[in-house]
Amino acid sequence: MRYRAVISYFGASYVGWQRQLNGASVQEALENALSKVFARPTQATASGRTDAGVHAEGQVVHFDADTSIPVKKIPFAVNACLPRDISMLSCEIADENFNARFSAKRKTYRYKLYLSRHVHPLLEPTHAHVAVPLDLSLMRKACGEIQGTHDFKCFEASGSVVKNTVRTVFELKIDSYPLHGGAVSHEFTDGNSAFDCALEISVTGNGFLYNMVRIIAGTLVYVGMGKLTVADVRALLESGDRTKAGKTLPPQGLHLISVEY
Amino acid sequence: MRYRAVISYFGASYVGWQRQLNGASVQEALENALSKVFARPTQATASGRTDAGVHAEGQVVHFDADTSIPVKKIPFAVNACLPRDISMLSCEIADENFNARFSAKRKTYRYKLYLSRHVHPLLEPTHAHVAVPLDLSLMRKACGEIQGTHDFKCFEASGSVVKNTVRTVFELKIDSYPLHGGAVSHEFTDGNSAFDCALEISVTGNGFLYNMVRIIAGTLVYVGMGKLTVADVRALLESGDRTKAGKTLPPQGLHLISVEY
Repeated sequence: MRYRAVISYFGASYVGWQRQLNGASVQEALENALSKVFARPTQATASGRTDAGVHAEGQVVHFDADTSIPVKKIPFAVNACLPRDISMLSCEIADENFNARFSAKRKTYRYKLYLSRHVHPLLEPTHAHVAVPLDLSLMRKACGEIQGTHDFKCFEASGSVVKNTVRTVFELKIDSYPLHGGAVSHEFTDGNSAFDCALEISVTGNGFLYNMVRIIAGTLVYVGMGKLTVADVRALLESGDRTKAGKTLPPQGLHLISVEY
Repeated sequence: MRYRAVISYFGASYVGWQRQLNGASVQEALENALSKVFARPTQATASGRTDAGVHAEGQVVHFDADTSIPVKKIPFAVNACLPRDISMLSCEIADENFNARFSAKRKTYRYKLYLSRHVHPLLEPTHAHVAVPLDLSLMRKACGEIQGTHDFKCFEASGSVVKNTVRTVFELKIDSYPLHGGAVSHEFTDGNSAFDCALEISVTGNGFLYNMVRIIAGTLVYVGMGKLTVADVRALLESGDRTKAGKTLPPQGLHLISVEY
């Protein structure tokens, strides 16, 4: 029987989803738990890799098992064998030909950052810190340029072997939230500059190149700082030149939110 | 010159605010940083202790220093000497007789928990996990009983040496939020039972007994589960019997939000 499950993980302690020689992976921890529960070696296939330190709220995996455990009980059994930074949130029986990787139609990632003079320790584990105000209005205009179907090779990290770099970004939006903590004032709301706030950059696409979301987030931050213009972003997409895009932002701000099939 | 500063910390790695022999404290880390910046041994006094593992968004401290560093620059200098799980968010010059502990008029704490069948790894570092639905309507009625001026010794952990256990709770409220993560459905919204959601129990008072907020939160959870009635909570306050109150909830859900003077 093939099963489809949603798993969530706090990525700080892992080298990423995929098994690697240089450290603990989410895949290894999950496969160990599945193998224990089903009493035979069990492999898990995810919708895609996530990098070292990246978090997942709703990663989707599939695995095959021959078990008498009722499907609704499987998450309880598996979670009893997992550390608390990895959890199976739900599990259901899937079609025999369901494949978590190849059947995926859309994925949503969210990049979280906060804008403040000083480090906020409670945000650090899940956000990137930006110490300067950003022009949200310009960043949102740049989102409009990036949305749609483009050759996204300008937003691909080197070292990738993907041949077709055309992807569709269905939606790219930025939400802002006041910072928690009684002491922080909202000083910078002059004009369009945002400061003392948290930003969530949400992006839904049919697929993503290596580091694409972190480079898009870094490019939007550059636009917000005035280091790149909206026209520069348009030119960047046309030229495909990675060296002109923004920096790759750090992994702890990136969250895989959901996968649609 | 006396200074007043707001600090925030992620408490997981500390034995609490106060210096102790058995591990690293926030006070020790902060005093080390202040002593380095001001080039002389510098002590810091907080509004009150926080226990091992408890977080602070807005702890207030005072310290004395004789320095040419402009007051607005002090947080930058101090933060350069602090680990990223402790941060000075702001600093100002205080009256000579300002005392972070004895001048405090009101404190606000927030206890965060989430209600879900399964562990949510991204909430674990800052929330307690409750695996059953809770009746929010009854919990809010119990809040009404607890608000006000009472002898709160029923909500005090043993081992305290405080003589006067009368305190005033100005406000006690519960806010609920949907859980993040695309995969989690809101199955339990039948009647008043809340599930697949996060709760924030916010309490403002003129002072708190040892473990008082964590015991209040535990008592409210018992009310939500039906283990205690609203009338039981009223009787509890009248009797002062700690053994009849709810459990002390774990430290990672507790956040010191702000202190008013």
